[in-house]
Amino acid sequence: MKVNGIAYRTIWVEPDGWSIGIIDQTKLPHAFETLTLRRVEDAARAIRDMQVRGAPLIGSTAAYGFSLAARGDAGDEALDKACQLLLQARPTAVNLRWALERMRAALRNQPRGERAAIAYREAAAIAEEDVAINRSIGEAGLPLIQQAAEGKRAGEPVNILTHCNAGWLATVDWGTATAPIYRAHEGGIPVHVWVDETRPRNQGASLTAWELKNHGVAHTVIADNVGGHLMQHGKVDLCIVGTDRTTAAGDVANKIGTYLKALAAHDNGVPFYVALPSPTIDWRLSDGVAEIPIEERAGAELSHVTGLTEDGSITTVRIVPAGSPVANYAFDVTPARLVTGLITERGVAAASRAGLARLFPEGNSRAS
Amino acid sequence: MKVNGIAYRTIWVEPDGWSIGIIDQTKLPHAFETLTLRRVEDAARAIRDMQVRGAPLIGSTAAYGFSLAARGDAGDEALDKACQLLLQARPTAVNLRWALERMRAALRNQPRGERAAIAYREAAAIAEEDVAINRSIGEAGLPLIQQAAEGKRAGEPVNILTHCNAGWLATVDWGTATAPIYRAHEGGIPVHVWVDETRPRNQGASLTAWELKNHGVAHTVIADNVGGHLMQHGKVDLCIVGTDRTTAAGDVANKIGTYLKALAAHDNGVPFYVALPSPTIDWRLSDGVAEIPIEERAGAELSHVTGLTEDGSITTVRIVPAGSPVANYAFDVTPARLVTGLITERGVAAASRAGLARLFPEGNSRAS
Repeated sequence: MKVNGIAYRTIWVEPDGWSIGIIDQTKLPHAFETLTLRRVEDAARAIRDMQVRGAPLIGSTAAYGFSLAARGDAGDEALDKACQLLLQARPTAVNLRWALERMRAALRNQPRGERAAIAYREAAAIAEEDVAINRSIGEAGLPLIQQAAEGKRAGEPVNILTHCNAGWLATVDWGTATAPIYRAHEGGIPVHVWVDETRPRNQGASLTAWELKNHGVAHTVIADNVGGHLMQHGKVDLCIVGTDRTTAAGDVANKIGTYLKALAAHDNGVPFYVALPSPTIDWRLSDGVAEIPIEERAGAELSHVTGLTEDGSITTVRIVPAGSPVANYAFDVTPARLVTGLITERGVAAASRAGLARLFPEGNSRAS
Repeated sequence: MKVNGIAYRTIWVEPDGWSIGIIDQTKLPHAFETLTLRRVEDAARAIRDMQVRGAPLIGSTAAYGFSLAARGDAGDEALDKACQLLLQARPTAVNLRWALERMRAALRNQPRGERAAIAYREAAAIAEEDVAINRSIGEAGLPLIQQAAEGKRAGEPVNILTHCNAGWLATVDWGTATAPIYRAHEGGIPVHVWVDETRPRNQGASLTAWELKNHGVAHTVIADNVGGHLMQHGKVDLCIVGTDRTTAAGDVANKIGTYLKALAAHDNGVPFYVALPSPTIDWRLSDGVAEIPIEERAGAELSHVTGLTEDGSITTVRIVPAGSPVANYAFDVTPARLVTGLITERGVAAASRAGLARLFPEGNSRAS
């Protein structure tokens, strides 16, 4: 998507043909800076320090980090060490592990002299597949926005509410929840996005707002508390959010607070869609509320806020009184009954076992 | 309630018998500082700069400010000017106007030489009535917490979720939503309060957390996004919030985001109570969503956050990218169907026209 009028991805091979470019997302939204990764250590640091974040982008960064390692020393010991280094950067990131396993598999039984080239090709394939999946999610979700637009007067935008950042910054390009929005925008449908701030990490206010602004999509940042009021007053036509994990029955784990918006959508007859690449479906799980463990993160994410001072420096301030305990649950689960549909790369599925099985008949065999 | 082990109210007459003490609430939660008001101008500034906030406390401050004016010059022209000055400090505060009208009425046809003394007595009466109402709300709400405690194992606390600050800092003492909590705490019932941060002004994280901490009530600050998740997992026994305005049919206008918590409570079978002094019932209104206008406040409340830097200075930082529009709706309306009961100074009423009429038979006559 565009930044300052120029099309970017979140990760790319530099013109030298081997070093890797990324956007330093820790500087967003206040500064747009790119970084060049030249060694596997650079890639591990980018992942660990969250200069890259979002499951698909972490996977791609790990794949290119592995490629950088293979370019230096493609021996098995060196590659083992590189994998260890990358895995330790974010030990709980499932996509990171998946990408590295795929890289190792691609190099199996390959001569050392060809390994680096194969690694770069495999990393590129991983990145391209992510872009293709997201583009397909965009195509699948587009009719939902078109349909909402048909009920509007000329020029009146379709109002879409989203939570957190399931945008292109979390993927290689397009994003998941944002893919239908960008697709509609490029198709000339007037859209306006209500951007939930998304406390405590503010990914909506900082990342989603930033990427929509740069791509030229009309939007308004709101407190997480506001969506219900907007829906009561007919100011939201549909909701589209992302997900970290969806059960085979269509329950959706996503950023904390998603469930509250789904309740409000249900109460006001507003369609509530979840955009997801099918690899995030966990076919082994059924009851999301009971079965999906919810990560508790550091309290400082809630008690402290980082932003830009008037004189232009990035500063962190405490907003909770010292001595008051805080709790920081990162995700919640939205039961399938509140989800109007799941927007996947193969089309829109009903949020149910039958709905998912129809689009992904191979899915249940993976459950065993 | 207590601060550093000493019982405070939010406003008091100093030992000199005439100057007025307040807590400078703009410094909370990071510093506890009191101020002395000696002239009506001091009172007007305290109201305008939100050193005092919350409808009952604004009313009491206006009443004492009027008294300070009467002490200086009790002539009608001087008192007219004092009223103008105080009204302009927060032109939309209904309680401010009400308190001043009551002060003027108390002085009507009184000799100038006695007016100051009468004014102080009337201001004290206004403050005492607020304390008495809130204490009664506490007594009325106590059985709800007692009942929840009966289902607990010994020592296990009753978990109560609250939103915004309907605490003693918003009133003269006890608060409204907090009154049953403080009453239960003093009665030896173990309580633990989930404190919604309450974006965008963070009254929960800053004021409610601060007052609970100082009074020694167990609590945990959470993002506004978290309550639904907690309720799904049985971690909330009941919700108690305040209200700015309640319709004759029991619809409740309160801080933005209240509606979302009520939806989550309803979805999980968690009782959802609203504590209110009966003067906040607007007997002329019925359908809150349709009839109560919702104030939009300055966007800077959302785009900027104020807190304490590591070196101990109070600093404001921008968290929304420059150029991204923001919208800041201050309140929302929770329909009566989601409210388990209204805790008033006369007892707990069903959130319905019949329920309110039973406790306040005189109410409907005020509707005309």
